[in-house]
Amino acid sequence: MKMTLTSLAVGLLLAGPAVYAQGPRNEPVQPIPAAEVSDAAMAELGKKLFFDPRLSRSGFISCNSCHNLSMGGTDNLKTSIGHNWQQGPINSPTVLNSSLNLAQFWDGRAADLKEQAGGPIANPGEMAFTHELAIGVLQSIPGYVSEFETVFGQSELDIDMVTDAIAAFEETLVTPDSPFDQWLKGDDNALSAQALAGYQLFKQSGCVACHNGPNLGGTSFQKMGVVEPYQSDSDAIGRAAVTGKDADRFTFKVPTLRNVELTYPYFHDGEAATLEEAVDIMGRLQLGRVYSNQEVSQIVAFLKSLTGEQPRFELPILPPSTNQTPAPEPFG
Amino acid sequence: MKMTLTSLAVGLLLAGPAVYAQGPRNEPVQPIPAAEVSDAAMAELGKKLFFDPRLSRSGFISCNSCHNLSMGGTDNLKTSIGHNWQQGPINSPTVLNSSLNLAQFWDGRAADLKEQAGGPIANPGEMAFTHELAIGVLQSIPGYVSEFETVFGQSELDIDMVTDAIAAFEETLVTPDSPFDQWLKGDDNALSAQALAGYQLFKQSGCVACHNGPNLGGTSFQKMGVVEPYQSDSDAIGRAAVTGKDADRFTFKVPTLRNVELTYPYFHDGEAATLEEAVDIMGRLQLGRVYSNQEVSQIVAFLKSLTGEQPRFELPILPPSTNQTPAPEPFG
Repeated sequence: MKMTLTSLAVGLLLAGPAVYAQGPRNEPVQPIPAAEVSDAAMAELGKKLFFDPRLSRSGFISCNSCHNLSMGGTDNLKTSIGHNWQQGPINSPTVLNSSLNLAQFWDGRAADLKEQAGGPIANPGEMAFTHELAIGVLQSIPGYVSEFETVFGQSELDIDMVTDAIAAFEETLVTPDSPFDQWLKGDDNALSAQALAGYQLFKQSGCVACHNGPNLGGTSFQKMGVVEPYQSDSDAIGRAAVTGKDADRFTFKVPTLRNVELTYPYFHDGEAATLEEAVDIMGRLQLGRVYSNQEVSQIVAFLKSLTGEQPRFELPILPPSTNQTPAPEPFG
Repeated sequence: MKMTLTSLAVGLLLAGPAVYAQGPRNEPVQPIPAAEVSDAAMAELGKKLFFDPRLSRSGFISCNSCHNLSMGGTDNLKTSIGHNWQQGPINSPTVLNSSLNLAQFWDGRAADLKEQAGGPIANPGEMAFTHELAIGVLQSIPGYVSEFETVFGQSELDIDMVTDAIAAFEETLVTPDSPFDQWLKGDDNALSAQALAGYQLFKQSGCVACHNGPNLGGTSFQKMGVVEPYQSDSDAIGRAAVTGKDADRFTFKVPTLRNVELTYPYFHDGEAATLEEAVDIMGRLQLGRVYSNQEVSQIVAFLKSLTGEQPRFELPILPPSTNQTPAPEPFG
C-alpha cells in the first residue's frame, strides 16, 4: 500500500504544471494569472447578483444578459439591448479578465469593477432601475439578507455591499492557459507556425504598442483613428465625455484581445463583424499599414490563440422573492 | 486497511436512501422520480441550445430567458417579454418537471416537449425567428455541427434534431426530494404540523381532484372559474383555441404545484401575486369555498413543502459563431 501511495504521489508530481527548460519568455505580453479568490463567500454572493434580473426594473435584464458568460462575457451584438428594447449606444465589452484593465467602460468613466457594477443598474437605457429600488428588492428576500449578513456582518443592505460582491465575482472571471499563454510559459509546441508568425508581425508592426500587458490591452486610452479618421455612425465620443477635453475625442480604452475569437463583433460600435475586418481596419487607421491577406490570416491565427479556459461554475439558484418583494415593472 | 474499507462501506450503506418502516404512503400524489437520462450527450447538447440566444432573431432571447433555471424555470413576470419587448399573452409556465404533463402550453397545443420546443423559436411575439434561419445559424457553427454529428450521426442539421435535443435536456429538469416527497416516502418528520394540516385540507376540500399525480397537476384540462367566472383582462381563451369548441373556453391545463413557491406570479394571466391570493381565489372560484386565513396559511405551508432539489449543472459554454454565421437582427 505504501508503495502504491508513493507511485501515486510521483504520478501527481509528473502531472503538475509543466516546467520548461527555457522558462517564461521575456515578452511585452504576460500570461493571465489564475484568479486569486480572497473571499469565496462574497464571490458566490456576487455570482447570484450577477445572474439576478431583479436588479433591473423589468425583472428581465441581469448583468449576464449583456455580459453573457456562456458567450465570452459579451452579448455578441453590435450594441446592447436595454430596458424596453432600447438600443444601447456602445458595444458591450467583455467582463472576462476585466479586473486587469486600468479602468472600466470604453471611456474609462469607472475607476474599477465596483464602480462599474453600479452603473448599468441605474442607467435608464440599460437596467433602468435605481440603487434604492434594487436594495429594496434584495432587502425583502430573506435568502439574500442572510447571505449578506454572513459575508458583510450586517443585515442592512446597501449598494456598496452589492457592488463589492459583484466585483468580487467578476475578479474570478479570468481565462488562463490559452495556447498563447502556454507558449509564453515556454511550450514551443503550443502555437502553430502561422500563429507564431502572426505574433511576430503583431509585435513588429506596432499592434503591441497598445495591446500589451497580460490583457493585451486595457493599459491605456488611445485615439480610434490615428492615421486616418474612423468613420462611424456612433455618437460615442470616448474619453472626452469624461475629461471634457477636445483632445480626448474618439479616445477609448484599448480593449483586451483576450478571447477575442468569442467577443465579436468588434470596436466600440460593433461595426467590424470579423477578426479579419478588424485587423485590416486597425492596420490602416492606427498604423498606416495595409496588411496582405496572408498577414491578416497570420494575425488572426495569433488572435485565436488568445482564447483561454472559460470560467466554469454551477448556474446559481436564486433565493425566491416574498410577498413583501416589490413586483418588477416590465411594461410600466 | 481492510477494516477501514469495511467501515467505509457500512458508512455508505447507512448514508443511502432512507428506508422507513411504513414504506411509501398510498396518496393521490406520488413522489417525483429522479431523472432518467437515456442519452447524456444529447441532453448536454440540448442544454447548450436551451441557453443559446442565437436561436432568436435578436440574438438576445434564449429558452432560459423565460424559463430561467435560476428562478424555478420561469421568468417570474406576469406575462413574458418577447422580441422587441412585446408583451406576451400568457404567464410563462415552469419548465421544471414539465415532462410529467399530459401536454405542453397552457392550452395543451403541443403534445410533448419536443413539439413545444419549436414553438417559441418561430413565434413572432417570442423569439421571432424561423426554424430555417435557426438551422442556418447552427449549421454555420462547427462546434455545434460536430456535436450534432456525434449525437445524431449526421452533420446536416434539421429542426427535429434541435427539438429532440432540447426536449432531452428538459427531461432532466426534475426536482425530487422535496419535503413533501420525503413525507410521501414515509418520513414523518419531513412536514411541519401546519403543512400536514394543509395537505389534509388540500385533499378534503377538493384541490387534489385536479392537482394530483406526481406533478400535482398537468394531468387534465379544467375550466378556470367553475363556481364563479374568473375575471381577467387576458385574451387567452384556453383549450378552445385548440379544439375550436365553445365548451373549452377558459379551460386550461392544470398547472403543476411543484416548486410553486418559486414560480410566482400565478395563473395563466399571472394576476395572483402571492400564494395566499392564489389559494383564496382557487377556493372560491373552483370549489365554492371561502378558506379562513388559518386554512390559507396551512395550505400555503403545504405548497411550500413542494419545493424540490433544483437541477444543478455547469453553465454551458457555447461554441462561437464564425464569419459564415448570419448576424442577429435585434433592431432590424
